[in-house]
Amino acid sequence: MRRDKPKYKQIIDAAVITIAHNGYHQAQVSKIAKEAGVADGTIYLYFKNKEDILISVFREKMAVFTKNLQAVLNQETDASMRLFKMIKNHFRVLHEDRHLAIVTQLELRQSGKKLRLKINEVLREYLDLLDVILTEGIEQKELDSTLDIRLARQMVFGTIDETITSWVMNDQKYDLIELAPKVHKLLIRALKA
Amino acid sequence: MRRDKPKYKQIIDAAVITIAHNGYHQAQVSKIAKEAGVADGTIYLYFKNKEDILISVFREKMAVFTKNLQAVLNQETDASMRLFKMIKNHFRVLHEDRHLAIVTQLELRQSGKKLRLKINEVLREYLDLLDVILTEGIEQKELDSTLDIRLARQMVFGTIDETITSWVMNDQKYDLIELAPKVHKLLIRALKA
Repeated sequence: MRRDKPKYKQIIDAAVITIAHNGYHQAQVSKIAKEAGVADGTIYLYFKNKEDILISVFREKMAVFTKNLQAVLNQETDASMRLFKMIKNHFRVLHEDRHLAIVTQLELRQSGKKLRLKINEVLREYLDLLDVILTEGIEQKELDSTLDIRLARQMVFGTIDETITSWVMNDQKYDLIELAPKVHKLLIRALKA
Repeated sequence: MRRDKPKYKQIIDAAVITIAHNGYHQAQVSKIAKEAGVADGTIYLYFKNKEDILISVFREKMAVFTKNLQAVLNQETDASMRLFKMIKNHFRVLHEDRHLAIVTQLELRQSGKKLRLKINEVLREYLDLLDVILTEGIEQKELDSTLDIRLARQMVFGTIDETITSWVMNDQKYDLIELAPKVHKLLIRALKA
């Protein structure tokens, strides 16, 4: 599988840096190749085009978020604690990789509907785990039984997303991870039984 | 002032339709001119370039949101009712102008940081009124006195925004306005004293 080849990861990491520095539209494949230290042609052994690189970056990085969240679900049964760890992990990964934060919060918001649908598809697996937190929380009578799962998911994701985008737009000046307990407190108040 | 001239509004409305149909990058000034029924050159009497058109569209349309919300603040003193009417008005305006919804939720999310900062500047006036709702609600002991206003604002705006974006991505298939009471219930639970 192409994803197991060593240069694949090298190109993905170079793409994050190149896109964060130049913006998606100005991040030519040749710039990504230079950052990765590979020939331009090598890129096309792994990726169809620049859009494929962007989607692949998102897929690889979301896999980290999803793996972390799956581990949380395996360790914790309490909906409130699961939600707290979800928020904290999400903030932590982007706090520690500021280039990635620029890519996920700004550069991935490309307007093309086809691209947006692909991005949503990748996001789906992560949001499905959020739905598990909500559904099991309701079953355990910890969360409000009248919750509309779709709206609750949109509130949780929308709040996390807006908090991170504001942090990126403010040049990542403050500590994002420190906000996790406050964001969690707001959200759990809305959700609890 | 250029904004008072009759063709200004005509071009703004044509730009919303053209950008919604073609996407921002494919919405050439000549297409906007054709939709508006004016000569290409006329556009440049009113706007510097396409980016200026996009920002102007957002400024004109946000003025409607802000005016509506200011009226709500003048009529209502109750934070919960103010918030409900804010959500409902926001949903209603975009439900009634589906082209505008595509522009605000997808096309305005351009990745250029300069453009994003200009968009945030326009949004500021609207969000300042949300801060008034939150601050006065705390003063009246209706809302939780320990609220972090910035995070509360990001939750309210993030939730409204995510709800609308999901509706747009789902081809505006369901009734957005009907969601207002449920979204309000979630948010007010998080905010109340």
